[in-house]
Amino acid sequence: MSAMARCVPMNAVDSLLVRAAHRRPVPRTPVWFMRQAGRSLPEYRAVRAGIGMLDACARPDLVTEITLQPVRRHGVDAAILFSDIVVPLKAVGVDLDIKPGVGPVLAEPVRTAQDVAAIRPLVAEDIGFIDEAVRLLVGELGGTPLIGFAGAPFTLASYLIEGGPSRDHARTKAMMHGDPALWSTLLDRLAQIALAFLRVQVAAGASAVQLFDSWAGALSAADYRRFVGPHSATVLAGVADLGVPRIHFGVGTGELLDQIGAVGADVVGVDWRVPLDEASRRIGPDRAVQGNLDPALLLADWPVVDREVRRVLAEGRDAPGHIFNLGHGVLPVTDPDMLTRVVELVHTASAR
Amino acid sequence: MSAMARCVPMNAVDSLLVRAAHRRPVPRTPVWFMRQAGRSLPEYRAVRAGIGMLDACARPDLVTEITLQPVRRHGVDAAILFSDIVVPLKAVGVDLDIKPGVGPVLAEPVRTAQDVAAIRPLVAEDIGFIDEAVRLLVGELGGTPLIGFAGAPFTLASYLIEGGPSRDHARTKAMMHGDPALWSTLLDRLAQIALAFLRVQVAAGASAVQLFDSWAGALSAADYRRFVGPHSATVLAGVADLGVPRIHFGVGTGELLDQIGAVGADVVGVDWRVPLDEASRRIGPDRAVQGNLDPALLLADWPVVDREVRRVLAEGRDAPGHIFNLGHGVLPVTDPDMLTRVVELVHTASAR
Repeated sequence: MSAMARCVPMNAVDSLLVRAAHRRPVPRTPVWFMRQAGRSLPEYRAVRAGIGMLDACARPDLVTEITLQPVRRHGVDAAILFSDIVVPLKAVGVDLDIKPGVGPVLAEPVRTAQDVAAIRPLVAEDIGFIDEAVRLLVGELGGTPLIGFAGAPFTLASYLIEGGPSRDHARTKAMMHGDPALWSTLLDRLAQIALAFLRVQVAAGASAVQLFDSWAGALSAADYRRFVGPHSATVLAGVADLGVPRIHFGVGTGELLDQIGAVGADVVGVDWRVPLDEASRRIGPDRAVQGNLDPALLLADWPVVDREVRRVLAEGRDAPGHIFNLGHGVLPVTDPDMLTRVVELVHTASAR
Repeated sequence: MSAMARCVPMNAVDSLLVRAAHRRPVPRTPVWFMRQAGRSLPEYRAVRAGIGMLDACARPDLVTEITLQPVRRHGVDAAILFSDIVVPLKAVGVDLDIKPGVGPVLAEPVRTAQDVAAIRPLVAEDIGFIDEAVRLLVGELGGTPLIGFAGAPFTLASYLIEGGPSRDHARTKAMMHGDPALWSTLLDRLAQIALAFLRVQVAAGASAVQLFDSWAGALSAADYRRFVGPHSATVLAGVADLGVPRIHFGVGTGELLDQIGAVGADVVGVDWRVPLDEASRRIGPDRAVQGNLDPALLLADWPVVDREVRRVLAEGRDAPGHIFNLGHGVLPVTDPDMLTRVVELVHTASAR
């Protein structure tokens, strides 16, 4: 990729999000929400009506509109591309669909050496619609940074091997332990796909990236170290030359926080189970933290939310950098006005 | 309850399970499996054919047969009563059913003060079928101890408030934070129900009890301390006079292990995310540990299982007491022969 081809929104580079991620001083704490573009918003449900998830992800006009909706409504400090972690898998020909209320479902799970060998690399031409959507968005967003994202190799592998969402990841773990060579081949392919997906987004103008290893918390620290971390490291190292901050997130990762950081993150996303001050101790001084309000609490009354937002801000104060977020995605039943009030509160209560 | 009324199987009192739970020396490590009586066994599927879960739980003949099946087949060192944590709720009139592939589902969720007030106490007469099943079992089991069990107040509350299984426990947490007084009333009622359920089982001859707080790992340590632990402590303190060991288990409780023990457990069940040596350090010297092979690994080949069983035994060796178990329940797809081999390996490899 040449420097010429890269569209860099100069003011986004100096945004609060990027500065906090790089552990530089900020006048107030930046805030965005995982799944801020989604079912909690009536305007989202309106534009999605009758359009399948993967079809929506392939339409730059819809991706742009949906990505912008929470920025307009809530005044968050970052947009995150509306897409799905399985979009690059679909783009390389994996036969899958995203079923409402279920999640990604494969026509045939990936379980043999032949299945793994059939997964080809992702090239930029596979995802022209992503490049176009990001360019449109960067033009619209002005100084608000756009976060690009990808699914981490382990989480992608779990969907592929299980054939859909899984609570126990049993066949995934069985392959990991039972056929480490095949596992490594699969994860390396997925790492290259995730990396290519991120590079297209950054080349088109994304100002930061988030690598979602949503299910990493299902693993012991020993399994993560041996079977997962090195492949996530490949992805994160592969975007290092682009200079954008790298956020790395998983749920239930209390036992893994040091590793989640050490595989190459600038920012570690933390769920609500570990307070940010303790999380930052585990992660160390070289990385910022992101999180970690329990999304379930947004269903309580405002006094509860007010108290908990202030607690999260207080616990994040001594971290080397703090990006306010939820500990996991916005729940679809969330009242969007609650999210707007959280943004306002973070902006005022964190002002230095 | 009078001492006369209590049926005590004397040889079970000196069983390996009870001795390990009380941190007394054992010639080898006892082993049983959560959900050992269940869908992994063809003989279970045969006797359950055409019979609903709650109907099966109400028939002492079936409960006895199903509870004995894994003891016969695997030679485990303990039986656990075949029942469900919602059985006592059904017994006090909560309108619920257990749907195959889903779990407990309520006709109407419990969300208001009126709903909570309608939950009446459990009395022994409500669960004569449990008393009968336990007495039948104790007669059959001889020296093999029977573990009685109950759901902990938080996990029961989540089913009641959400109306069924939940991934995020959002309405549960909203009530907990939004109306702490109502929450406390509900959890106190559920603690009394769980306690009464356990006392009936021990009076009829159960040699140990396990309190399942399956979803406690969804909570932060601060929320557990304030909203949950005191109610679990009520249950565990309420059986202290019976002298049977109390096992307390939840999934994903790495951040809570000290509290899970301190609320009154003799044994803390640990999932696979924290190695037993580290878990025991967090729990302290006054409690034994139970666990913690990842049930997903039973889908791998035997050499993997052999290695991992030995690892768990080695990590549990320095704990004040160790009961071998999985880190969560047996997965329905598990090959039952694998479970039998694990029992044999634990028996031989742990011999002192």
